[in-house]
Amino acid sequence: MKDEFEWIRVIRKRAQRGAPELVVGIGDDTAILERSAETWWLLTTDAVIEGVHFRREYTPAYWLGQKALAVNLSDIAAMGGRPRFFLLSLSVPADLPEEYLEEFVEGILAAADRYATVLIGGNLAASPAGFSATVTVLGDCPAHQAVRRDGAQPGELIYVTGWLGLSALGLKLLEDGYRWDAALPERVRRPIHAHLVPEPRLAIGQYVARERLARAMIDVSDGLAQDLFHLCRESHVGAVVHAEALPLVVEAREFGVDPLVIALHGGEDYELLFTVKEEHASRVEEMRAQFPDLPLTCIGRTLEEAGRIYLERAGRWELLPPRGFDHFRARTRTP
Amino acid sequence: MKDEFEWIRVIRKRAQRGAPELVVGIGDDTAILERSAETWWLLTTDAVIEGVHFRREYTPAYWLGQKALAVNLSDIAAMGGRPRFFLLSLSVPADLPEEYLEEFVEGILAAADRYATVLIGGNLAASPAGFSATVTVLGDCPAHQAVRRDGAQPGELIYVTGWLGLSALGLKLLEDGYRWDAALPERVRRPIHAHLVPEPRLAIGQYVARERLARAMIDVSDGLAQDLFHLCRESHVGAVVHAEALPLVVEAREFGVDPLVIALHGGEDYELLFTVKEEHASRVEEMRAQFPDLPLTCIGRTLEEAGRIYLERAGRWELLPPRGFDHFRARTRTP
Repeated sequence: MKDEFEWIRVIRKRAQRGAPELVVGIGDDTAILERSAETWWLLTTDAVIEGVHFRREYTPAYWLGQKALAVNLSDIAAMGGRPRFFLLSLSVPADLPEEYLEEFVEGILAAADRYATVLIGGNLAASPAGFSATVTVLGDCPAHQAVRRDGAQPGELIYVTGWLGLSALGLKLLEDGYRWDAALPERVRRPIHAHLVPEPRLAIGQYVARERLARAMIDVSDGLAQDLFHLCRESHVGAVVHAEALPLVVEAREFGVDPLVIALHGGEDYELLFTVKEEHASRVEEMRAQFPDLPLTCIGRTLEEAGRIYLERAGRWELLPPRGFDHFRARTRTP
Repeated sequence: MKDEFEWIRVIRKRAQRGAPELVVGIGDDTAILERSAETWWLLTTDAVIEGVHFRREYTPAYWLGQKALAVNLSDIAAMGGRPRFFLLSLSVPADLPEEYLEEFVEGILAAADRYATVLIGGNLAASPAGFSATVTVLGDCPAHQAVRRDGAQPGELIYVTGWLGLSALGLKLLEDGYRWDAALPERVRRPIHAHLVPEPRLAIGQYVARERLARAMIDVSDGLAQDLFHLCRESHVGAVVHAEALPLVVEAREFGVDPLVIALHGGEDYELLFTVKEEHASRVEEMRAQFPDLPLTCIGRTLEEAGRIYLERAGRWELLPPRGFDHFRARTRTP
């Protein structure tokens, strides 16, 4: 079987068609349609599927609702856009308790209010096995202001928000038997919370788009190695990542997990990765003041060699395979 | 457990929010957004789920691809709109042969070309059990020209396109062991074809919208009784349906199926149901000339009594319960 990304390439190639309003189709975080000379509309879809993205036994329904929307908003954030409307398609198994569905709906509507995104339609169907929710979000941004994956040039600085591998560690802890509890010690609570309720980086995405600071941007949903590879491939550049610079989750070691491995290959961090021209590095420093609570780390730079990603560790360079979470090769995500 | 439509009512009530561009949210065949003073955009989502909407053993993948798009286009048709773009979210089980997925993709892209609808994005994920495809379609129509469910007044004529119950008979034949074959006799081939590859009634939907002929419109996807009830409920009218006038699939009797029952309660016909002012009946006659191959039948009229649907048979009126296909109460659809 082709893997997930091979399939996307095949479909993208076969589906290539033009249309008057179509600015960008398959291949970026969202599609872009021209609404008017002033505004673009952004469209994206993503799903949370029981047994693939979550297990019901450790996933509070209210948070799953929030996450179902958040994973889509992360794609809007990665374009520098603002979410506006969404549609919700639910597939409900016979064994789902009514309360689970009710709390899921409460959670997604609470997230919708928080992010000023309005539910405008959807679909309800039975499921032969497992609960799943597919969300489609429509966002917008000023025309020509969306940050695409393909705008990077060689020699740019690569930045990432937040921590890498936190969600993967949270998943590992849940799989090991930990369960969410506000009274859990910080080193357990933080990764579990990050995994269960990721925070879409909308404000910072909009900032770097509005300030024309980012040349290319993507959200890190399938692991740094995988998503940096997508950005580089689309931009026809390569990259080097400095292992020592990565915002690692060092407490992972306590739980027998290598922080570097989950930073590179763990999924679902939903952080933003973007490139900045070297001469604009000082403007990134200005930006930090706007987002004092969110780490923002320069992890490497882009290179000429198209599609090649290197990891630099103690002065030695090694080629980094674009290995991340492949939906067709694994079931529930584990680091 | 609440049924499908009770859940939709609950969610609709809780999700009620305004937004500048929002013309219609949850509760019609599609949502409506104002694109400009001249154009509205229409958004809808629907899914085909293995074990719920189809069984793989009798469903050619190429046709399933066509159907996955068609069931959404039917919602666009029911507004009088024109499909433009779509997103495709696939959930793929480990046991799905690569060829099945390939043919599905070929089928949906062929349908996309046929209906001038461009694939602009999507999502691929594993499935714990069963193949499913969720499609979101963006269509458009001239501003203020969409035909909603809530525009009917008492005393209007009710029309329906095509045949009612044909898809339900096709499903019954497939469940009985018949398999698609172009060489099948007509009385078996026709219902099976209607079930496997429904035809969205885009041209006639656009015609009645453009000509301002329809006052209210809906597509018949959950059975006439159910969908006429939705239209009446939204319009605050009632209706009487004349059993003798219905475009029945009389050959159903040969297979032990009551043509009236599947016409009233069978699902997935994807025909259009709309109301017309009585003084415009002659304009409907003009319309027939434009669509010579598609039956168009006056099946009854709207009444004052809000939300009550009567079946008139040999002069006797009986109340018709809004019973149709409920996704939460049944698995694979049977008449």
